[in-house]
Amino acid sequence: MSRLQTQEQAVDSEGDSSLYRRDEEGTQSSHRMLGFSDALLSIIATVMILPVTHTEISPEQLGRQPLFYQAILYGQFDKSIQKLLATRIAVYLMTFLIVTVAWAAHTRLFQVVGKIDDTLALLNLACMMTITLLPYTFSLMVTFPDVPLGIFLFCTCVIAIGSVQAMIVGYAFHFPHLLNPQIQCSTHRDLSRRHILHLVLRGPALCFVAAVFSLFFFPLSYLLMVTVIFLPHISKATTWCKDKFMGHRESPAHNVEPFSIDLHAPLSKERVEAFSDGVYAIVATLLILDICEDNVPDPKDVQVKFSGSLVAALGAYGPQFLAYFGSFATVGLLWFAHHSLFLHVRKATQTMGLLNILSLAFVGGLPLAYQQTSAFARQPRDELERVRVSCAIIFFASIFQFAIWTTALLHQTETLQPAVRFGGQEHAFMFAKLALYPCASLLAFAATCLLSRFSTAIFHLMQISVPFAFLLLRLLVRLALAGLQVLWDLWPRRPQQDQGEPETQSQLLPAPC
Amino acid sequence: MSRLQTQEQAVDSEGDSSLYRRDEEGTQSSHRMLGFSDALLSIIATVMILPVTHTEISPEQLGRQPLFYQAILYGQFDKSIQKLLATRIAVYLMTFLIVTVAWAAHTRLFQVVGKIDDTLALLNLACMMTITLLPYTFSLMVTFPDVPLGIFLFCTCVIAIGSVQAMIVGYAFHFPHLLNPQIQCSTHRDLSRRHILHLVLRGPALCFVAAVFSLFFFPLSYLLMVTVIFLPHISKATTWCKDKFMGHRESPAHNVEPFSIDLHAPLSKERVEAFSDGVYAIVATLLILDICEDNVPDPKDVQVKFSGSLVAALGAYGPQFLAYFGSFATVGLLWFAHHSLFLHVRKATQTMGLLNILSLAFVGGLPLAYQQTSAFARQPRDELERVRVSCAIIFFASIFQFAIWTTALLHQTETLQPAVRFGGQEHAFMFAKLALYPCASLLAFAATCLLSRFSTAIFHLMQISVPFAFLLLRLLVRLALAGLQVLWDLWPRRPQQDQGEPETQSQLLPAPC
Repeated sequence: MSRLQTQEQAVDSEGDSSLYRRDEEGTQSSHRMLGFSDALLSIIATVMILPVTHTEISPEQLGRQPLFYQAILYGQFDKSIQKLLATRIAVYLMTFLIVTVAWAAHTRLFQVVGKIDDTLALLNLACMMTITLLPYTFSLMVTFPDVPLGIFLFCTCVIAIGSVQAMIVGYAFHFPHLLNPQIQCSTHRDLSRRHILHLVLRGPALCFVAAVFSLFFFPLSYLLMVTVIFLPHISKATTWCKDKFMGHRESPAHNVEPFSIDLHAPLSKERVEAFSDGVYAIVATLLILDICEDNVPDPKDVQVKFSGSLVAALGAYGPQFLAYFGSFATVGLLWFAHHSLFLHVRKATQTMGLLNILSLAFVGGLPLAYQQTSAFARQPRDELERVRVSCAIIFFASIFQFAIWTTALLHQTETLQPAVRFGGQEHAFMFAKLALYPCASLLAFAATCLLSRFSTAIFHLMQISVPFAFLLLRLLVRLALAGLQVLWDLWPRRPQQDQGEPETQSQLLPAPC
Repeated sequence: MSRLQTQEQAVDSEGDSSLYRRDEEGTQSSHRMLGFSDALLSIIATVMILPVTHTEISPEQLGRQPLFYQAILYGQFDKSIQKLLATRIAVYLMTFLIVTVAWAAHTRLFQVVGKIDDTLALLNLACMMTITLLPYTFSLMVTFPDVPLGIFLFCTCVIAIGSVQAMIVGYAFHFPHLLNPQIQCSTHRDLSRRHILHLVLRGPALCFVAAVFSLFFFPLSYLLMVTVIFLPHISKATTWCKDKFMGHRESPAHNVEPFSIDLHAPLSKERVEAFSDGVYAIVATLLILDICEDNVPDPKDVQVKFSGSLVAALGAYGPQFLAYFGSFATVGLLWFAHHSLFLHVRKATQTMGLLNILSLAFVGGLPLAYQQTSAFARQPRDELERVRVSCAIIFFASIFQFAIWTTALLHQTETLQPAVRFGGQEHAFMFAKLALYPCASLLAFAATCLLSRFSTAIFHLMQISVPFAFLLLRLLVRLALAGLQVLWDLWPRRPQQDQGEPETQSQLLPAPC
């Protein structure tokens, strides 16, 4: 985006305001509103992990049910607490899923609506407000699975979101200068409007049926709800199957131009990045909140237990701080890998978007991993299990990142910059960057199986060594490739047809610098 | 930014990758890293309000000290709880202040460093990690004001941040292709490096002195800490005084070109927007977290108190939901006003940046206002006080926004787009947009003084009517201006010299549409 900055400077210095010019009265670029929406949605999606991580040590539970207190004191997972934890994890996952679906729909909508005015900005705020209510309906649903009110409220919310989005579509098509220029000039504008309205309203329509059913036979409502959540993927799979088995039909061919922007177009790369950044940023920040709330010693405790020595009192929190550094480094470096990858991505296809969301869901689970590792000091008995959960969360978060790249490589001419394609000079380096965390977490997991007594030490060693590996990665990759090259040069030459594999290898070598 | 999108589309369709091209091996645009840093810093700055809002009903306190339990039950603010609240508010304010100072320094730094590579991205992550530790040192300082350890750790953190930033500067000047093109081509590059190093290291140097003093005479350390926090503003005031009273000196004149980017240049408007968006987004989202944690009824309570009727149980939370809607609307609309204002801002001067940060600090206090209003149901006695606190927070958050605009108008040719300058066609509309919340909150405050019995009703009425006022604002402003115009036309004509004031009024009229 450096060109943008240069332009901005040029604008500033020359006094030319064309970049920020309002084309018609009250019309504005939608850039900042979309950024704000992305931040809001990514935070809502992730923030529900906070009740999960607070479950175990929740003093509220202690206050209400004194029995739990003893159970925790003796280091045993009480069944009720496990149930509460499962409840909250379910709420987190459902929230994450539905918010990402809402985010994807929002992205699609504002790929059609290119510019905004004040009314659209306010409508968008109303839409955001309705989306923030969804986690609450999930909380109700999960706490009272036998009462249809939760699902009824969920359906009401989805219908409200759909109505607001339909109003946005209607408003934008009523003032066509707000539309994407491509649709604005299109002759099929009415068709586009019907099509985008269909996309926006099919979820709410299903929810309306679900709301009606919730009044007398609510298990069917749950089924319909699941359909709504997976609707985009179901419809994509259906289209794909149709294409695959029945061949391309002729009828949509002449509509490709207005339709392409809705159904099969890649997600806006900028918005995928913004949404991901929001998730990484909030996850990194939730950690310090825990530290500041839990790890400040009580002045009385310091007087009584540590005879007034604050340093000794803080020393008792040592493992928590180590866990904090490790977790922050993990979140930061996963962001770094994501950043490096998307720097070379030209288009984000739907599959890549889905894999990215799966990766982010596990990144959102990292505070749980932190909670698990920082609880070592309190409950050393469950140590092994906790280290393994942490390794698993890190592994899945990073392997889905790797999968994004693998998927991108399948259509590399469309999706990737030349440098990271097969044979590009950064290909091997990118491979190493993305493979580092899956390998390290897998290795740590395997090591805990063999050396279960040292599991904490292994885990912390892994968390501390990986950042250094990232720093030295370019060097390490060069050394490895140079070694391979030397081996290849020493190898006795074979006939041409056997050279397929090593030839690719030598192409991976970076250009000499 | 629509031109950017158009460019992106052009890039996508033509397969030309120049916008995302990596200029040299490993060099990347810093755009996304800065966005991530902005999100991280804005969330850290704001998230410390969470312990504040959780103070009052904190069951942890109930669990530990049973005496508090009764005090709260009887609706009295216990002194210890008030002290805890004050402590946490102090931590929030100090964190907000220091994080914004760190953010401003970060902005300055990356106005000099134009591009990044992997090493710089990793160094930036290390810098972010150190910054996230600052809130913890404040917690220690405020909890143990008589122990020098807190201030010592704070100084260590600042020195660590300074060292990492100095490493970034050193690295960037060692590989000059990473620098801002303006400095890269400058002949005074060495001078610039020394100057930016001076800027980056003066705070840490003071902190080093403070750390030394903390070992034997720590009150002086606190004084030095305050100096560090206000250093940018002190140095700016000093420069301004020098300019004012001693006249412009000649010596910096020939250095203006390399220096201008550091000291007197406006903050990057894009980063001010990104930081503000982060604060608004996290504030809006903290609200739903409270709702989901506190307002899901306990299944047992529902059985016992409401004879199994979930609807009746939820009905008891009615006031909380009303408060949630009101608070979300307030945050959303304050964002909307900020968005509208910055759409017309061309440059953000340092004074505007300071006012923006003051406004954001109060926006960060809004969850406190929510907590205050949602607690009505529990403690109806303190109602009046709570409504007034809420009104005051909203008033200060919005009046500082208004002040940004007023300050911008002082140098309007540099800072504003023509449309909102004096006499511009959007001037009156922008005035109305920014004046709406200060007026409404002031009005509500005054009304609670006259009609103290209906204070809650007044507050909720205010929160609900303002969104509609925003929707109809353009119409209302037109009507008001048309009325003024009619009055002006009816007024008997006076000689030319008396017309100054009304002339301005009639210029404010929007062009007929």
